[in-house]
This record gives sequence, C-alpha cells and structure tokens, in this order.
Amino acid sequence: MKSRPVLPVVSLLTDFGTTDYYVGAVKGAILSANPAVVIADITHEIPPQDVEAGAFTLLAAYKTFPTGTIHLAVVDPGVGSTRRPIIVSANEQFFVGPDNGLFSYIYDREPSHRVFHITFDRYFRPSPSSTFHGRDIFAPVAAALSNGVRPQEFGPLINDPVRLPSLETPLRIIHIDRFGNCVTNIRRDLFDGRVASLRVNGTIIRKFQNFYGESSGKSLFAIWGSAGFLEISVNGGSAAQKLGAKRADVIILNVA
Amino acid sequence: MKSRPVLPVVSLLTDFGTTDYYVGAVKGAILSANPAVVIADITHEIPPQDVEAGAFTLLAAYKTFPTGTIHLAVVDPGVGSTRRPIIVSANEQFFVGPDNGLFSYIYDREPSHRVFHITFDRYFRPSPSSTFHGRDIFAPVAAALSNGVRPQEFGPLINDPVRLPSLETPLRIIHIDRFGNCVTNIRRDLFDGRVASLRVNGTIIRKFQNFYGESSGKSLFAIWGSAGFLEISVNGGSAAQKLGAKRADVIILNVA
Amino acid sequence: MKSRPVLPVVSLLTDFGTTDYYVGAVKGAILSANPAVVIADITHEIPPQDVEAGAFTLLAAYKTFPTGTIHLAVVDPGVGSTRRPIIVSANEQFFVGPDNGLFSYIYDREPSHRVFHITFDRYFRPSPSSTFHGRDIFAPVAAALSNGVRPQEFGPLINDPVRLPSLETPLRIIHIDRFGNCVTNIRRDLFDGRVASLRVNGTIIRKFQNFYGESSGKSLFAIWGSAGFLEISVNGGSAAQKLGAKRADVIILNVA
Repeated sequence: MKSRPVLPVVSLLTDFGTTDYYVGAVKGAILSANPAVVIADITHEIPPQDVEAGAFTLLAAYKTFPTGTIHLAVVDPGVGSTRRPIIVSANEQFFVGPDNGLFSYIYDREPSHRVFHITFDRYFRPSPSSTFHGRDIFAPVAAALSNGVRPQEFGPLINDPVRLPSLETPLRIIHIDRFGNCVTNIRRDLFDGRVASLRVNGTIIRKFQNFYGESSGKSLFAIWGSAGFLEISVNGGSAAQKLGAKRADVIILNVA
Repeated sequence: MKSRPVLPVVSLLTDFGTTDYYVGAVKGAILSANPAVVIADITHEIPPQDVEAGAFTLLAAYKTFPTGTIHLAVVDPGVGSTRRPIIVSANEQFFVGPDNGLFSYIYDREPSHRVFHITFDRYFRPSPSSTFHGRDIFAPVAAALSNGVRPQEFGPLINDPVRLPSLETPLRIIHIDRFGNCVTNIRRDLFDGRVASLRVNGTIIRKFQNFYGESSGKSLFAIWGSAGFLEISVNGGSAAQKLGAKRADVIILNVA
Repeated sequence: MKSRPVLPVVSLLTDFGTTDYYVGAVKGAILSANPAVVIADITHEIPPQDVEAGAFTLLAAYKTFPTGTIHLAVVDPGVGSTRRPIIVSANEQFFVGPDNGLFSYIYDREPSHRVFHITFDRYFRPSPSSTFHGRDIFAPVAAALSNGVRPQEFGPLINDPVRLPSLETPLRIIHIDRFGNCVTNIRRDLFDGRVASLRVNGTIIRKFQNFYGESSGKSLFAIWGSAGFLEISVNGGSAAQKLGAKRADVIILNVA
C-alpha cells in the first residue's frame, strides 16, 4: 500500500454544464500539462454566471478534500475583461479562478488565506482566448501548481480581492438543493441548541428533527444539515415548493 | 506496462444529482482517506430515494468492473434512522451503503455473498452527520476497504439484510432508459428462443429484432438487451411513450 | 515529480446520458481490461443518435488532450448492423468508435490520419451484444490500445470511412451551446479581420466584441469563440433564443 503513488487532486467546479465540449477541454488542458493528477468533478451545473451559487457550493465541499488539493473553480461572467485571475492559498489547499467573489466564503472561513494575482503567463496555453480562460489560463495554472510550482511564482500577493455580500447577515436562505431542502445561513457552530422557531415567507416552523425520516408526515421541519447550516425540509418532498421559497428569502429567527 | 501501479477502483452510484456539493463532498472524503484510488461515477441521477431504480442500475453495471472494485451506492431515504449501514462482499467485489434493499439483486445473483453490519466507527469521519452518511460513513469505509481493511473488521456478519420484492416475478417492466427502451425482467438466460409474443398495456408485440436499426420503420419490437433482459424498443423513438408504459407495468408473455 | 507514473488517458464522448447504467458499464469494461488508465468524461449528453453534434464536440475538444490519448466516442444509431467499428490514428492520438461520420472533422483537420477497420475480435468482451458495442467492443479495444496494442493489430487499413457533409460549406450555425451562443463554421484562421457583418434569420449583426462583458447591453454581437469559429452571442442571455436560431440555419457573410 505505502508504495502506491499519491497523485495530486484537482477538483473542478464550473457553470459549463455537461452538454458541451467545455469540461472536456479543461480536463484535456490539465492532463496535457500534468498527466499524473486525479481530476475530481464537484459540479459543472452551477447556474450560468451565478457566482454566489458557485461560492456556496465550493464552501460546502472544500474541507472534505485532502491537503494539497487544487480547486479549479470557474464561474466567470467577466472572462476577458480586466477582472483578475487569482490563486488563493488557504487550508493547505489551492483555489484557482477569477477574482469575482467566487472564493469569498473561503476568505471568511480561512483567515490565514493569501491571494495571488496571476500575472506571469509562462504557464498559460499559447495565445489564450478571451472567452475561455478555464481552458487557457486556469487549467494550465492548476496543473503547474500540481507540478510543484509555488503560488508566488505566478504573480504578486494582493490584499483587495473581490468579496460577495456577507454570508452571515441578513439571515436568509442561501441555497436550495436538488431535493428542495432550503439551506439557511444559520450556523450550527453559533446557534446549536438555541433555535426556538423560524419564520420564512409567512410560515412558522417550530418542529425540529435529527434526521429526515424521523416523522412520517409531510410537514415542514428544521434540521441541522451536512454543510453546517440549519435547513428547512420535508420528508420525501420539496420544502422549497411547499414554502414557495427561493434563494435570498429572509429568515426570521426566534432564539430560545 | 507491468510496472504501472494498479489503483483500486471505487465506483459511485447515488441519487445526489450533479448540481449540489454532495458528489464533490463524497469524492473529497474518499480521496482524503485514500488518495490512491480511481473513482468511477456510474450515475448520480437515480431518481430521489428510488431504491429500486438504484438496485437495477447497480445490477446492470457491477459485473463489468474489475475484481476488487468497491461499489459505493447511496440511495438512502432512511439516513440517520436505525437502518443499518452495511458492506456486502460478493463477486470478489465490495458494496457499501444502506441496508434498505439497494443490494437485493446482488444477493440474488451472487449466492455466496456475505453481508456485514458496519458497527465499528473507527474509520468514520469525526462527528458524522445524521443526514449525509454518504460523506461521513460510507465514503471513509469504502476508502478503508480500498486501503486493505477487511470487511469483517467493520462489524458482524448478518443474515437478514433487507430485500426488495423479487426481480423475477411478476413479469413486468423494470426500467425505462433515456432512449425510451422498456427493460423487462424476462431473462435471456432463461427464455432465449422461447418468446413468441409479449403483451403490455393492451399492445401485442410479435416482432423480434437483433439490433435497433434492423428495420427502418417506427414499429415496436422486442430485443435482447445489453443487461441480459428482453427489452421493448422502437428504432429512433421512445417505446415507453408509444406504449404509455411506466415501470412496474405488467407483461404477459406468450412462450413458444 | 518525475517518478510519478504517467497513466494513459481515455476520454469518453457518448449519447448515453447519465441516468442509466451505460456509462458505468463502459468505465467498468475499460478498467477491467486496464485498471491503470485515467478516464476523462468529455460529455455523455450528446443528443441521442446525433452523430453531427458528437463530431463537432469531439473536434472542439480533442486537441487539448495529451499525446497518446485514446478518445472513445460512441454515438451509434447503427449498432449491431454492418456499420464498421474503427480506430482512427491521428494527431498522435487514437479515436475508437463506429464508422458513421463521428470522426469526419478529425479527418478534415488531420490529413495524415489513418483508419483501421476493427475485425480482430480477440480483445472484445465475450459474446458481444448487438446493442451495446460501447461496452463490449469499443471499451475493451480502447483499453487494449492503452495497453500498447498497435492499431494495425485490430484489422486492415481502410480508405473509405463514412464522412458527414462538409463542415466548411455552406456557412451556417453548427452548434448552439448551453449558454445560447451560436457557433458558426466561419473559421478564425481563414476570416480573422475580414468579417464586416453577418446575417442570420433576417437579423444583421455588425457589432464585434472581444469578450462577453465588453458591452453591458443585451444586443447581439459576433465574437471569435474558443473553438476557433465565429460565434453570435448576447451578454448574459441566449443569442439562439433572441435569433430564433437552430443548428443548420444559414449565415450570410459580408466580407470586408
């Protein structure tokens, strides 16, 4: 076992969808620059240009990955403009992508993060396009990091990366998942044991559950979810549909 | 060639969808526990909580994988409840997931299977959630198996795993694929050469074909499919739509 | 770093979708024949039986992959018929799949390509089905290539592979991507700096942009896209929807 090679992991998170050639082109570009990596898709189904959704999904996934992982994240409406390409070093991992807030929540959770503006084009693909930096800039930079190039070799440290509005306030729904679970920004590490009730869109939720199947009915309940936030759910149904809820809907929290 | 390392394969089959962070979190959890594995997605698009669909899909795919493969399968409406987490040892492969019938058809096909109840929590992620055992229990257990831990080290052998209703009877449609092909549970190894006609939803099918393009028309035909079952198809169209068929619709078989 | 193993890459491009067992079965079949490969999904969402869409997507992706990559491409309405299984050797890569035009655009771009008719069945899975050559023929042949078997060992060189209508003329829309960008077949290497205006479906487009966010409005513009073709786009919207455009719609080009 110990003699097995440990290949560096490159995770992918994009809004490219899976019907086009974009994801394939990014994988090819990585493997051309370093064929000895493990590529792990997180998702390519971030809604088009939805930087906030990308930021949440990355936040919810990054800590499960091993030390040294390179997260390549591309939700990039500003591709080709003056928005900066960056590398974030945090949690003994790297994050590569556009400076548009996509890594905001990583900055919040990892106070000792460092951000580098990618200015040195030595590792870029030849004649990078102005519409597909995922393939021409971010993929080869991620591969170069996986080859051992240090982040400071790509450009200067910066102190003013773009940040999204705070994930902390106001209390609100920050994500609705495939099952219709409504993820709020009420953090378990701050509020566990203290939530008496929630109100969202005129509906008050007083019931708490520890797991989905705890009750057999179809009523709404609150549950501490796997991303570390309070969620609103219905067993075997869509809480979002039942609440008519969408992202950014405000939550009124009644603390015990 | 012979000096190339052979990494253990972990296949993934879930109902997590591909839009959320769930699949990424499972991959990260596996790679954190063993970075030297090959992860192969079977599908993440099992309809939510549809254990029967998961069981069929796993049945249709598992035999193509190499000896030693660890199949991580999570369709888990009972997550967090008292339903048992299990490891199945069968066909010189392992299957890891919830004890809810997901591995039923493997039990049927592999009489010498053994089932272990996972009770030893040493390999779990710290403080496992009650909503995401895929990440916190099944992924690290699969990784531990890939690291050479034996299944009996996770807990006791059990003799009463949950089983779905038989896949053998009644004769029926057990799966409708993306192309609208209706897969029945009529097994080629039992009925090859003996089927005179089929009746489903009032429609009688007498035509047999050996491949899809054998006739150019748009009429229904029966064909021995790649999963080893008789299928009902239309060339270039959806047999399910044409028949108004859905899973569990009964087939009346006329044997020659 | 240099001691890390370099595993051969097998890319996958199919119309299998991601809801069924088909993709998993192909991956299992590859890994059973050579567990030491890197499998990279390009896409499995080619519209069912749409050979032309598969050919375009492969064209747009193949050059990013490393030397030695084996592209396994299966969009195969004629599976089981007399259509030939083939291996294409081009660009120091291999392409494995059905002889139905799927590799047409590779032939055009790589004049020194060679095409081999796969007739030698030694590497096939036992008793290949007539409906799933992706699993039973193409996957094990791709794996055998990755194991170092040379293409001429699978069968004779042929000179008459099936070709799709030319990608060069007439000028038209050849692909509409997830974002609604309309990819034309106007090649940058032939027309850069020479396009005065485009007309499609009665709409004339005179505006050119270098990147999507260059203007803030919602008007149509032309842009040289990442696949090397002129595209018609709208910032933050769907050009296809705005134009009522679909694949094959004719473009009238006004050259400066």
